[in-house]
Amino acid sequence: MTSDGSAHGPSAGAGGGSVDSGLLAPVRAGTRVEAATSDAAWLRAMLDAEAALARAQGRAGLIPGAAASLIDRVASGFTADLPDLAQRARQAANPVVPLVADLRKAVGDKGVAEFVHRGATSQDIFDTAAMLVAARAVGLITADLDTVMGVLAGLAERHRDTLMAARTLGQQAVPTTFGLKAAGWLSGLLRARDRLRDLRLPAQLGGAAGTLAALVETARSTDAKPAGSPGGGAGSVGSAARETARAVEGESAQARVLRLVELYAEELGLAAPLAPWHAERSVVAELGAALAGTAGALGKVATDVILMAQTEVGEVAESSRGNSSAMPQKRNPALSVLIRSAALQVPAYAQLLGAAGEHERAAGAWQAEWLPLRECLRLTGGAAETAAELVAGLQVFPERMRDNACLTGGRIVSERLAVHLGRDALDEALSRPGPLEGPDELLDPEGYLGAAPELVDRILADYRKRA
Amino acid sequence: MTSDGSAHGPSAGAGGGSVDSGLLAPVRAGTRVEAATSDAAWLRAMLDAEAALARAQGRAGLIPGAAASLIDRVASGFTADLPDLAQRARQAANPVVPLVADLRKAVGDKGVAEFVHRGATSQDIFDTAAMLVAARAVGLITADLDTVMGVLAGLAERHRDTLMAARTLGQQAVPTTFGLKAAGWLSGLLRARDRLRDLRLPAQLGGAAGTLAALVETARSTDAKPAGSPGGGAGSVGSAARETARAVEGESAQARVLRLVELYAEELGLAAPLAPWHAERSVVAELGAALAGTAGALGKVATDVILMAQTEVGEVAESSRGNSSAMPQKRNPALSVLIRSAALQVPAYAQLLGAAGEHERAAGAWQAEWLPLRECLRLTGGAAETAAELVAGLQVFPERMRDNACLTGGRIVSERLAVHLGRDALDEALSRPGPLEGPDELLDPEGYLGAAPELVDRILADYRKRA
Amino acid sequence: MTSDGSAHGPSAGAGGGSVDSGLLAPVRAGTRVEAATSDAAWLRAMLDAEAALARAQGRAGLIPGAAASLIDRVASGFTADLPDLAQRARQAANPVVPLVADLRKAVGDKGVAEFVHRGATSQDIFDTAAMLVAARAVGLITADLDTVMGVLAGLAERHRDTLMAARTLGQQAVPTTFGLKAAGWLSGLLRARDRLRDLRLPAQLGGAAGTLAALVETARSTDAKPAGSPGGGAGSVGSAARETARAVEGESAQARVLRLVELYAEELGLAAPLAPWHAERSVVAELGAALAGTAGALGKVATDVILMAQTEVGEVAESSRGNSSAMPQKRNPALSVLIRSAALQVPAYAQLLGAAGEHERAAGAWQAEWLPLRECLRLTGGAAETAAELVAGLQVFPERMRDNACLTGGRIVSERLAVHLGRDALDEALSRPGPLEGPDELLDPEGYLGAAPELVDRILADYRKRA
Amino acid sequence: MTSDGSAHGPSAGAGGGSVDSGLLAPVRAGTRVEAATSDAAWLRAMLDAEAALARAQGRAGLIPGAAASLIDRVASGFTADLPDLAQRARQAANPVVPLVADLRKAVGDKGVAEFVHRGATSQDIFDTAAMLVAARAVGLITADLDTVMGVLAGLAERHRDTLMAARTLGQQAVPTTFGLKAAGWLSGLLRARDRLRDLRLPAQLGGAAGTLAALVETARSTDAKPAGSPGGGAGSVGSAARETARAVEGESAQARVLRLVELYAEELGLAAPLAPWHAERSVVAELGAALAGTAGALGKVATDVILMAQTEVGEVAESSRGNSSAMPQKRNPALSVLIRSAALQVPAYAQLLGAAGEHERAAGAWQAEWLPLRECLRLTGGAAETAAELVAGLQVFPERMRDNACLTGGRIVSERLAVHLGRDALDEALSRPGPLEGPDELLDPEGYLGAAPELVDRILADYRKRA
Repeated sequence: MTSDGSAHGPSAGAGGGSVDSGLLAPVRAGTRVEAATSDAAWLRAMLDAEAALARAQGRAGLIPGAAASLIDRVASGFTADLPDLAQRARQAANPVVPLVADLRKAVGDKGVAEFVHRGATSQDIFDTAAMLVAARAVGLITADLDTVMGVLAGLAERHRDTLMAARTLGQQAVPTTFGLKAAGWLSGLLRARDRLRDLRLPAQLGGAAGTLAALVETARSTDAKPAGSPGGGAGSVGSAARETARAVEGESAQARVLRLVELYAEELGLAAPLAPWHAERSVVAELGAALAGTAGALGKVATDVILMAQTEVGEVAESSRGNSSAMPQKRNPALSVLIRSAALQVPAYAQLLGAAGEHERAAGAWQAEWLPLRECLRLTGGAAETAAELVAGLQVFPERMRDNACLTGGRIVSERLAVHLGRDALDEALSRPGPLEGPDELLDPEGYLGAAPELVDRILADYRKRA
Repeated sequence: MTSDGSAHGPSAGAGGGSVDSGLLAPVRAGTRVEAATSDAAWLRAMLDAEAALARAQGRAGLIPGAAASLIDRVASGFTADLPDLAQRARQAANPVVPLVADLRKAVGDKGVAEFVHRGATSQDIFDTAAMLVAARAVGLITADLDTVMGVLAGLAERHRDTLMAARTLGQQAVPTTFGLKAAGWLSGLLRARDRLRDLRLPAQLGGAAGTLAALVETARSTDAKPAGSPGGGAGSVGSAARETARAVEGESAQARVLRLVELYAEELGLAAPLAPWHAERSVVAELGAALAGTAGALGKVATDVILMAQTEVGEVAESSRGNSSAMPQKRNPALSVLIRSAALQVPAYAQLLGAAGEHERAAGAWQAEWLPLRECLRLTGGAAETAAELVAGLQVFPERMRDNACLTGGRIVSERLAVHLGRDALDEALSRPGPLEGPDELLDPEGYLGAAPELVDRILADYRKRA
Repeated sequence: MTSDGSAHGPSAGAGGGSVDSGLLAPVRAGTRVEAATSDAAWLRAMLDAEAALARAQGRAGLIPGAAASLIDRVASGFTADLPDLAQRARQAANPVVPLVADLRKAVGDKGVAEFVHRGATSQDIFDTAAMLVAARAVGLITADLDTVMGVLAGLAERHRDTLMAARTLGQQAVPTTFGLKAAGWLSGLLRARDRLRDLRLPAQLGGAAGTLAALVETARSTDAKPAGSPGGGAGSVGSAARETARAVEGESAQARVLRLVELYAEELGLAAPLAPWHAERSVVAELGAALAGTAGALGKVATDVILMAQTEVGEVAESSRGNSSAMPQKRNPALSVLIRSAALQVPAYAQLLGAAGEHERAAGAWQAEWLPLRECLRLTGGAAETAAELVAGLQVFPERMRDNACLTGGRIVSERLAVHLGRDALDEALSRPGPLEGPDELLDPEGYLGAAPELVDRILADYRKRA
Repeated sequence: MTSDGSAHGPSAGAGGGSVDSGLLAPVRAGTRVEAATSDAAWLRAMLDAEAALARAQGRAGLIPGAAASLIDRVASGFTADLPDLAQRARQAANPVVPLVADLRKAVGDKGVAEFVHRGATSQDIFDTAAMLVAARAVGLITADLDTVMGVLAGLAERHRDTLMAARTLGQQAVPTTFGLKAAGWLSGLLRARDRLRDLRLPAQLGGAAGTLAALVETARSTDAKPAGSPGGGAGSVGSAARETARAVEGESAQARVLRLVELYAEELGLAAPLAPWHAERSVVAELGAALAGTAGALGKVATDVILMAQTEVGEVAESSRGNSSAMPQKRNPALSVLIRSAALQVPAYAQLLGAAGEHERAAGAWQAEWLPLRECLRLTGGAAETAAELVAGLQVFPERMRDNACLTGGRIVSERLAVHLGRDALDEALSRPGPLEGPDELLDPEGYLGAAPELVDRILADYRKRA
């Protein structure tokens, strides 16, 4: 314990208090995605949203350009005492209210401070920040998926014809190849990667209740004032800004504000929304579903590795020594276990995302999205980074695969024998102990691979096409 | 059917039997989607899959054409004692095994019976049936969504400028229009509809463990035999069938089988899979997520209707009299309650779909998908059909909306006043009881609609474009 | 559509329409608990509740005794067209409203018909029926658990000292005994059984909104009337009934109604509630949690059996031949797979039980409990009945257990060796291929069972004590 | 840690650090339970477990008393770099392995270091720590529940007869009292509190795979050696320790170790387990269910407060000003929203607790319990502490309650009128607009409270009895 001791208090000292750093989630501890989704990252994203809002309003002539620049500068350099901010978030049920207060104070100039957060509501900033964080995390995740897929494609190709037992319901069924198993993993990941890549994460801007009313009001009032007039704000910069705003003559205040929303999204590198989505949460639900799908595809790899690494099976091993605190001989599939721990959790969290809330902004359902969204992002991201480590070091034992496939003395090709011997003769043969007897070309498991190698080719071709 | 008299259950007591017909799910009771997802519909779809498999193999020359025709005919007319079939499914942990046995018996001719289910595994038939059922149900759902959206588009247009209070966290916030609320509903449904429409549901065919080995074996053996040779099966028809098979000279047995998979999918009107997906369940997960999204979008409408229909709010009412067993005056928002009951359930079921299973076919996870998949389909479908009924009869009371928006004596435009009066003066004004005082053009809620009407236009334009 | 005659399903066969009979849930198909939780059983329970309400009111003198008898008689013999009833439930968002209408019609006598459902609300009847169904289902489940535990206790005793490899994270760890594994299963089931047995399922009676107002009103009016006076209802029987009611002189109408609630519960064999629990759903949540716990304890057995039955492990087998539609040699652990399919689903359904609803009765959350509650009951019950079948036929192969434990040439006792050789010498020994060398009394896995046999004794003693 | 540099600190600036401090969970930010469940608290509990293990082994004579004292002392003072520890946990898939290594290093003396963690496995320490953390958190939660209940009991008593409208499905139904509503909340919390209080949280000690083999081995070797003999370890202290061990003459090594488990539990203030529960997770599942029940009971209060606080209803208000970032007039029910956000999440997390794992220790399911268990504890605890704040400041407006109950011009007592006027006459009366006409004693809502006040008395009596 670093410092915490007694200090349950809100602002327990450095390193201490009630901060968490992944001790209960080794699958993501120290991963890039963990850092990219931390409280600090979320704070940074909220500040980015406030700064972008100011810059966009500056460009659109709704606030003076100099004010926009100042706000931008202050937001960029702003830091906060996170536990303190978190605690003050209790007052308004979200962290944006105290953050805006702090930011206004940091800006100093009272005239400019009033332009901070102008026309926005807390949810505009928080949702936009969530999308920024998500976009960054998704970028990390897809990069890791690409790495994993590269290795799996190599495995699939190399082991295109490597005999192993296919298993259904835990029982050896018929022969297959390890290449097809790896290609199957690849196939699931490819689909998950594409789904993540196709997400269009939008900025949020709707004002108090999704009508953009305060911004329209401002647009109306800035329309009315001639450029450079007294009261217009920050002097010459203001005039320039208003020029931009005047660019579209005769534009209604509403149209100007809808254009502002696009500028805002553009500043952030996010998609422009059709309309505010305070209470239409498809985006969040779809993000959660895509992450759950990704975690599932990674979990599939881990589950199979754990089963193949069983002492009695021994067909693969993780290279990193998964040490045991008690048993020196054990080589635990530790990375796979971590990945699986994530895959088991993500769907349960994802179901919370996108629930219908009340009226124009929900009283609870929205706030209940924050933790599970973050955990979906970082557990999935942690699993992806861990999977990259797993596949990079995966040891494959083809001899053991062959031995296992031959373990049942030919029974693994019973399906084939049934056709050639007839079911009755086969049943009789199966009832006798010991290896089956018959012509080698029928009994050889390698002769009954079906289209396994061709399916590998197909999946690899698809993978290359969609790379 | 009264109460299932015939008592399939081992000790079904008074009123016995173990069949269900929606008594615990009025949201879907008697709806089209309920029928389309019943046990009988599932059985039909499994038979359709077996028939299509036979026809496709006939076309590909893997089995004699006459055999294919006979199997097709028998499968079409086949009926089963469903409770008995369900019970026999326990033996093999799936219903396909006993169904195939029954179907072979029904075919009669022993030589042909062996071509039933040839080269397939239970999961091929069950998964394909699930996709057929899903495709039919999704078709019904999207049709109902289209109906609902048509009505909502009309409401949005008609009430583009109808003043009402926007509410956040249960409190009146600023003015909005009922048109924008309806457009918001529309927007969520449109996205859900498109997502459902974009699903590509594939057939499943992989054989015992996804290698298609038995089919490749058959393709090899039919390759080897000259057309019309003795032992070729069902005489003259066989020769014709083999001709088709011979169409692609020099084709490998594997390529022929991969082509067969395409014929099979084509026969069923499903997408052709890249490879067998016994253990790569993205399709099912994505279907579940799309249904959960749809249920959520419908639930949003229902939640808002329930809140607006509250006695103290009274802005809308359901036309159907939602009667109470005790209170004659009540007009319960019964349809909305039903829709909401579905929306609350579907995400919990959908999280079970697509879980990673072990090796080539899962020992439990696959079997755990069946019930929740069906329930996702029919609860969502029931909610969609119910929503069509709801919106068709929804009564809207614009006067009540206006009265409510004026309830706070101008406080609903405080955001606006803050700008004009300054925050301090406003705070003082707000602290005095009674209506706020000030110029009407500032206090009139209708003057502070922001871009609400323009957002309606935007959403409607998008809706028309994507129709 | 009343009863689906018209068959929307493509060509729904015998038993067609939209009724279900377990085809998608073989784990419960044809089990006793499935029948005990069917629509018909639920209808029966609702009728039982109405009948008990009438009888209790008869006993309490709130309605004439003859009326009570008639209602009781009619309810006992009443049957309904279930699909039609289900569909009419849409109108009021619950099936009790149309059922009461039907029941009144069936009673015929208009004077008596008004006593049907007197003072109750739909939720009173539905919740009470749910508790009746649950009580019956729980009784079946605990009986099956007792059976399973009996067999497991036998296995634990018989195999108290049977060597096998303990496995952690899929790897052989140290030796244990099969008896301890079986005792571990027993231990989980025992706890689950006790939890189910300790549930106190209460009747529900609160009237329109939990105040019992209509009943108090009735009690007041029957108080006022002298026994046998005209208008008292059904003549002489009425007087007798009113005598009962008059037994407690000076009792307030409220106290009398609270006593009525107890009579009602007594008639039904359910617990008497402290107060109406329309919107306090702990009972349902706890029931769901106990069922999820039971399903989990059963799932643990199934998971271990599946793993031990793997081809490469071969330590147990299910006796029932789990046949494959494609592979004649396979002996699938079909029953275990069924049990596992239930265990994977139940927690997801149970989370829906007991959610907080709005005000005095919820608008959606209550209705969303019905399906998942039933499915928790019957999936768990099906799993319990299936487990009885599983353990009754489980084949145990002690030689294979021993062989597996010896597979690693002594590495399974590395923990022990570390102590005796020191970690460095051991690490060196482990790094060499082949069996470890050393004194037999150290290397023999059977010599390193720790307290495994004694823990078996302990668990068995506990089991016997709590039987 | 790959990228995130040093910045663990709570005031991490731009982009920095991966620590969290509740920014996304204001419901628990800065609460006592958050601190009690932090990474630091978990680390402390793991150290407490290691220290207790050493002390218990010292008492039982398995390790020298001086060694036990040294380990105890070092563990008490030990601190760690939490992010670094978390990251090193990836290697073995749990944080105990690197912690034990660190602790051994900190002990210094090589002879003593080997007694650290002696005979235990990582899961022994981690599970025990989880129970310690849970016990402390549950203590805080029940204390907060007691506070909340005290206030609610006061409200129930004070408002025993305060008229308000009961509402079902969002519609006014019949009259009730605010006292009964408060008593209903109390009733749910009481049940939740008792359930938490009745939990028996056990220590975990099973060794490598639940057989306690290493400890039995040690017990055997310490048995064999005469007191004070050379090689006995730490000299004179060793002899004393062995005396204690010899206290029970003729005791088997197994019995001695089972006694050790009890000493260990006793040292920790936890319950002694019947047997190791590495793979029998009922305890965790039941803990999760009890927490979900508590969160649900708290959520019920919050949901009702949000609805009663609606602008159009106005029957209660939170005293703390829930400020809006945009709308000065708003008084958001911020605390209720926070509580509700917790109540919506906890059931989804709780479903992950107690899942069946593989064999003697699970490969993923166990590791997937850690995060959701912590979040169940601290979201529920945060909700409880927040609820204490909510009810302490809750403003109740009885006049508004009365006004609302009279809003419908007597229609709220239609149930009563139906009895007195007959259903037909009532229906006709209801169809006319305006207030109903009739005798005041029938129309007065206050005259139709049923047993509401008496039910309050009953619940209060029960509360006092169980206090």
